[in-house]
Amino acid sequence: MEFNFARRMAHLKASEIREILKVTERPEVISFAGGLPAPELFPLEEIKEVNRIVLEEEGTKALQYTTTEGFAPLREWIANRMNSRLGTSFDRENILLTHGSQQALDLSGKVFLDEGDVVLCESPTYLAAISAFRAYCCEFVEVPTDNDGMIPDELERLLENTERVKIIYVIPDFQNPTGRTWSLERRERLAQAAMKYGVVVIEDNPYGELRFDGEALPSVKSFDQTGCVLCLRTFSKTFCPGYRIGWVAGDKRAIQKYVLVKQGADLQCNTIAQMEIAKYLELYDIDEHIAKIRAVYRRRRDLAVKTMEEEFPEGVTFTRPQGGLFAWVELPEHVNARDVQEKSLEKNVAFVTGGSFFPNGGRENTLRINFSNMPEDRIVEGLRCLAGILREFV
Amino acid sequence: MEFNFARRMAHLKASEIREILKVTERPEVISFAGGLPAPELFPLEEIKEVNRIVLEEEGTKALQYTTTEGFAPLREWIANRMNSRLGTSFDRENILLTHGSQQALDLSGKVFLDEGDVVLCESPTYLAAISAFRAYCCEFVEVPTDNDGMIPDELERLLENTERVKIIYVIPDFQNPTGRTWSLERRERLAQAAMKYGVVVIEDNPYGELRFDGEALPSVKSFDQTGCVLCLRTFSKTFCPGYRIGWVAGDKRAIQKYVLVKQGADLQCNTIAQMEIAKYLELYDIDEHIAKIRAVYRRRRDLAVKTMEEEFPEGVTFTRPQGGLFAWVELPEHVNARDVQEKSLEKNVAFVTGGSFFPNGGRENTLRINFSNMPEDRIVEGLRCLAGILREFV
Repeated sequence: MEFNFARRMAHLKASEIREILKVTERPEVISFAGGLPAPELFPLEEIKEVNRIVLEEEGTKALQYTTTEGFAPLREWIANRMNSRLGTSFDRENILLTHGSQQALDLSGKVFLDEGDVVLCESPTYLAAISAFRAYCCEFVEVPTDNDGMIPDELERLLENTERVKIIYVIPDFQNPTGRTWSLERRERLAQAAMKYGVVVIEDNPYGELRFDGEALPSVKSFDQTGCVLCLRTFSKTFCPGYRIGWVAGDKRAIQKYVLVKQGADLQCNTIAQMEIAKYLELYDIDEHIAKIRAVYRRRRDLAVKTMEEEFPEGVTFTRPQGGLFAWVELPEHVNARDVQEKSLEKNVAFVTGGSFFPNGGRENTLRINFSNMPEDRIVEGLRCLAGILREFV
Repeated sequence: MEFNFARRMAHLKASEIREILKVTERPEVISFAGGLPAPELFPLEEIKEVNRIVLEEEGTKALQYTTTEGFAPLREWIANRMNSRLGTSFDRENILLTHGSQQALDLSGKVFLDEGDVVLCESPTYLAAISAFRAYCCEFVEVPTDNDGMIPDELERLLENTERVKIIYVIPDFQNPTGRTWSLERRERLAQAAMKYGVVVIEDNPYGELRFDGEALPSVKSFDQTGCVLCLRTFSKTFCPGYRIGWVAGDKRAIQKYVLVKQGADLQCNTIAQMEIAKYLELYDIDEHIAKIRAVYRRRRDLAVKTMEEEFPEGVTFTRPQGGLFAWVELPEHVNARDVQEKSLEKNVAFVTGGSFFPNGGRENTLRINFSNMPEDRIVEGLRCLAGILREFV
């Protein structure tokens, strides 16, 4: 038969990241492509222990259905931690556990977006947020963005002149894909603009705990006096991604709507995964663990930046991220990163081209480098190889 | 601020089942409300073992991101099993793992439904399928249904005369909420009608393995010659629901679209849960395990039916399911099951009222009885108590 798919399917395409991950499974490939955390840092022995304890203590409860909202002790831990970091006054009713922060993006689209509604986003922005929101047939307007975040006057101008803006989507810390971090002033200006225009801010912050240099900056949520900022977070980068546990936190009136759509989306998160994370947080010091991750990624970032500085040809620029997983490379305008990628894959070096991070297209002269997943010697080897290829193009 | 939610949020309400589950957590409550499998039958010791082995053998791979499609050995096991049961010729590319079959319902809505499209469904039908599809702003047309399934002439008449029918949604085995099983002829007629009109059938079959009496009937998929039937299944009722692992199986052109929307929805299923189920299936005999579940549920069904036959007053009718988890009770037309529920909750007996299983409302004189989750003595005690309350109403 000829399938008669929904109209939205015409706009959805396979994530280039997920597709390239299939290539990078080959062990000979040096991959800067995924957003994979370093598996050697997963607390494997602790997880074995926690796993054993949860099945011993909770028994079949760990395997049964549970509430849509999620395991109460884990939601309470999250509320307390956010309160101490952000100055919020959350309790567990402010928190919904989700299957990764990716699901929180999807649910955000479902809760807020009608066909034709507008999402304001950074330019470029996170690829899989584009797919999640696009499934609700929205439009994207890219807000002019520099190294300090969205440019406030441009944001205000767009809020003033654009109909049906429903969401401002931002990643203020170590953004994906650019690695950029918003300045303090920009965070405050964003919150003020959102409050003034009554628009929801989705503040996605998967990497905030992974700061290598400088002082942590207050989250956009810290400036929110009306409940307009919803926070998306995850255990994927600080614990492990395989459990698929993230969350959305914010005003209870909004969280109740998220709970409703999560009921229809998949009823609830994996029960035992929620209990295991809660037990890990009870028995171990996650901050000590995060400090270890930071130390390793910092060295990798240092090495990646140093190698790019030494080896990349004139005319190629790149960001020097203060944290997170990614750096962003801009090539001379006439160079198409897809051509570079083709050559580099021949030499078993993988990265993601930057064009798809722009929801309205363009900027094919960009690419994203992940530095968290490869050991140090392979980072140097891979980036040297990439530099050699770049010299052929510029 | 005043949140400006999407229009769909006006139609979504909290699942009465999920809400009543909060009440039934109190141990003194005898609950016929949820669709909870019996936890004492979960293979807890085997899961402990499998858990240990997977973390030992797979190490950090079990904790890392994996592909959206799912863990290949598990998809292969599923394809082989479906081939041997349904006569299909699936390979792993025909299978996408989902967070429970609930997620497969949500993804079905996303893949097929535009606003205003029509879903044909049984009357009544599964509550959480209604919420999942309704999020895509579809209309429901209830097909007149009797004890053997949808009435074929009525179905054909509706297919002939209704614009924009995109999905026919059915649960042919031990339906939720009625416990009814479709006859062989009705299955074949449904497949023929769907092929003739080029409409997709979502054949949801969470309970098919739990047959207590009689011979298994061929699935609707067995009669499908064009790829129009998509099969939704789950490990929730045969293994345990806490892992949230189900799947959708069918024509590869459709499954590829499901993969695309799952990427945006939550990237992938819990990695270790997929590996653990695969390992369980490798090391243990799931059919032996399912036989145990069947034996226990059969006794509970027998006892529930016997108690209802002996105790329920004249004028109250109910189904005698050949399998699954549910029986369906119809009260005299003037009795509102919500009034009965109020009285029965006062006496710590819980059930779900039937009205919300009709997407277009009405039939408030119905209720659903789950018989899988309570031990035998409490089934008798609870149904006797309910019978006493019913005698006050009829």
